[in-house]
Amino acid sequence: MISVRVRVPVPLHTLGETSAGLLGVEYLAQVHMIDFRDNISRMTGYVPGEQPPPGTKLVKLNTNENPYPPSPEAMKVLRDFDTEWLRRYPQPDAAIARDVAANVYGVPEDWVMAANGSDEMLALLARAFLEPGKKIAYAAPTYSLYINLAEMQDAAMVEVPYDEDYNLPVKALLDAQADLTFVCSPNNPSGTVARLRDLDRLAAGLRGVLIVDEAYTDFADENALSLVSRYENVMVLRTVSKGYSLAGLRLGFGVSRPELLAGLMKIKDSYNVDAVAIRVAAAAIRDQAWMQNNAEKVKASRNQLADALTQLGFRVWPSQANFILTRPPKGDAYRLYLELKDQGILVRYWDRPRLADKIRITIGTDEQNRALLEGLKVLIE
Amino acid sequence: MISVRVRVPVPLHTLGETSAGLLGVEYLAQVHMIDFRDNISRMTGYVPGEQPPPGTKLVKLNTNENPYPPSPEAMKVLRDFDTEWLRRYPQPDAAIARDVAANVYGVPEDWVMAANGSDEMLALLARAFLEPGKKIAYAAPTYSLYINLAEMQDAAMVEVPYDEDYNLPVKALLDAQADLTFVCSPNNPSGTVARLRDLDRLAAGLRGVLIVDEAYTDFADENALSLVSRYENVMVLRTVSKGYSLAGLRLGFGVSRPELLAGLMKIKDSYNVDAVAIRVAAAAIRDQAWMQNNAEKVKASRNQLADALTQLGFRVWPSQANFILTRPPKGDAYRLYLELKDQGILVRYWDRPRLADKIRITIGTDEQNRALLEGLKVLIE
Repeated sequence: MISVRVRVPVPLHTLGETSAGLLGVEYLAQVHMIDFRDNISRMTGYVPGEQPPPGTKLVKLNTNENPYPPSPEAMKVLRDFDTEWLRRYPQPDAAIARDVAANVYGVPEDWVMAANGSDEMLALLARAFLEPGKKIAYAAPTYSLYINLAEMQDAAMVEVPYDEDYNLPVKALLDAQADLTFVCSPNNPSGTVARLRDLDRLAAGLRGVLIVDEAYTDFADENALSLVSRYENVMVLRTVSKGYSLAGLRLGFGVSRPELLAGLMKIKDSYNVDAVAIRVAAAAIRDQAWMQNNAEKVKASRNQLADALTQLGFRVWPSQANFILTRPPKGDAYRLYLELKDQGILVRYWDRPRLADKIRITIGTDEQNRALLEGLKVLIE
Repeated sequence: MISVRVRVPVPLHTLGETSAGLLGVEYLAQVHMIDFRDNISRMTGYVPGEQPPPGTKLVKLNTNENPYPPSPEAMKVLRDFDTEWLRRYPQPDAAIARDVAANVYGVPEDWVMAANGSDEMLALLARAFLEPGKKIAYAAPTYSLYINLAEMQDAAMVEVPYDEDYNLPVKALLDAQADLTFVCSPNNPSGTVARLRDLDRLAAGLRGVLIVDEAYTDFADENALSLVSRYENVMVLRTVSKGYSLAGLRLGFGVSRPELLAGLMKIKDSYNVDAVAIRVAAAAIRDQAWMQNNAEKVKASRNQLADALTQLGFRVWPSQANFILTRPPKGDAYRLYLELKDQGILVRYWDRPRLADKIRITIGTDEQNRALLEGLKVLIE
């Protein structure tokens, strides 16, 4: 609870009357408390990676953006955008984008729901399922937003450690029997993919909902979409932020049985996805060749960078994402992070258990990756 | 709670193994319950006005969109949009748009927060302040989203009736002493404006937060923005959906002291406003002359339409918004709504207390307003 100083109202000169004359005596001296819910007051909130001001010249390898531009087909839709589509409210169900996505995923249209980024799908899940007495479970380290969302709903958390190779701790997650179990795959920040057989065991054994957050799946060799048709309690999350190079647009999807989506549709804002995102993303998703081609380039660069880092003595976790988690030879990750930043190269660092001796590097263009490697070579000598 | 049929997993042919072999016996026969929070299962959700499919030829006067297009300056930003701004994540604080808005409102930049439509600001307020044991208050009839948001948070509601002339029931709202008190001004669906002296009394006398939802203020002669500098517990909401003709973009603002915004910043999604909305809306807000000129045209049309309806025997409430609430001579509003729809003219109708004998008409172009009047003349004879 934040309490703020009392302000005694000053005369309302514009009305030609004094506020004292307008106020009933019984209400005159109210103290104004900004009385947030206790769990909201306690929490600190999710801290996104640094976003340098527009125009800054940096090698920006810290927030997992795609180094290649979005589809020219998508840009064409933007340039030819009809003013009428801005003047009017957008489709409440973002059907134009949803239907294209459903076609790519090979599921019926009512198995897909669109949101203002897959972050909004996660927030809707938290609001629909979590309250005091409910709990989430997840394997750590992973995307920390899951924790923030549980805090907002005042729910409990069961954190289970990944082993050193990031195998999914299936038994422990099953034992937890949480209302919502989150698995990020490829996992942020490790880049590792959960095996389908492990996710299948989880889905079958959990009484609650299993969320497989596949934000980075466009760079992976396997995914868990098939589980959605096999289990009513599985939702797979997708986004146009990574593979489609549209992080600026904010469009994500939840894929599951309609029964599960129905509860989330009730609590979303009426017009949660804007008209530009709907039409531009639809064009980008239709252009599968463009996305695949960029993803292949990123995967090739990722494998090259992983080899080069290994040769320099870094430990590299096997990534199927557009980033690499790596431990420098001496574990002095914080120093490297700071000194790279001095060189104008941004990577991601967390002062958190199991991550404080590692950095996460987003795969950039070949030129950016070379700049990074040159920078690191100097720093570790 | 929705319970769904058990599905016994089928063999995982893709893995060349049977799922039965993968599943621990102890987890084999779980029933999958989609166990939404009870309050979420109970609620029905907000129902937005009808949005006809793209390309449909209709006189669409049902969802309060501006009949005139957005600023050419805004469209220029859209056509020249840099691919780089789509590839990267947007500004977490939407600073480019926020700072332009703060300048127009005449407040410091940290007194303004941007959201994915003012609906998202309302949802954030609900999530930051409401939980079981907390309550909202509002005068009815008003924007029904306030009720849905309280339901989502399982909070209590105190509904106080407006009088027949839509004067704000200040005493009753003060007696309620809710955690959040919502006043929509100009009020949807009546179009009437709350007097500043009444809002001042409310702000001074409430221990909780007063939200003045000014989505329609660009068509009004007065607003309550001055209260924000006088009271820590007041938030004024604004949007680019109405005056700026950008309903498709989704950008709204909360204006208040920074202490109040701080709690909402913690719980919003990291990137809640997209890069297109930020830059296009900033250009639109900079072009005050365009917005004002369109607002003046709407106000003139509104006053003409109100006079014409009055001459036809309709009761018309004095509107400062871009719509009119009106009662047909015989109160047969539902029939008129349906028969107008048959003519291809959409207006808004609610089968709700005090509204079932009225329709709400959005102000269109002069041509649209004439079509509406001609349609009504035939129907009431």
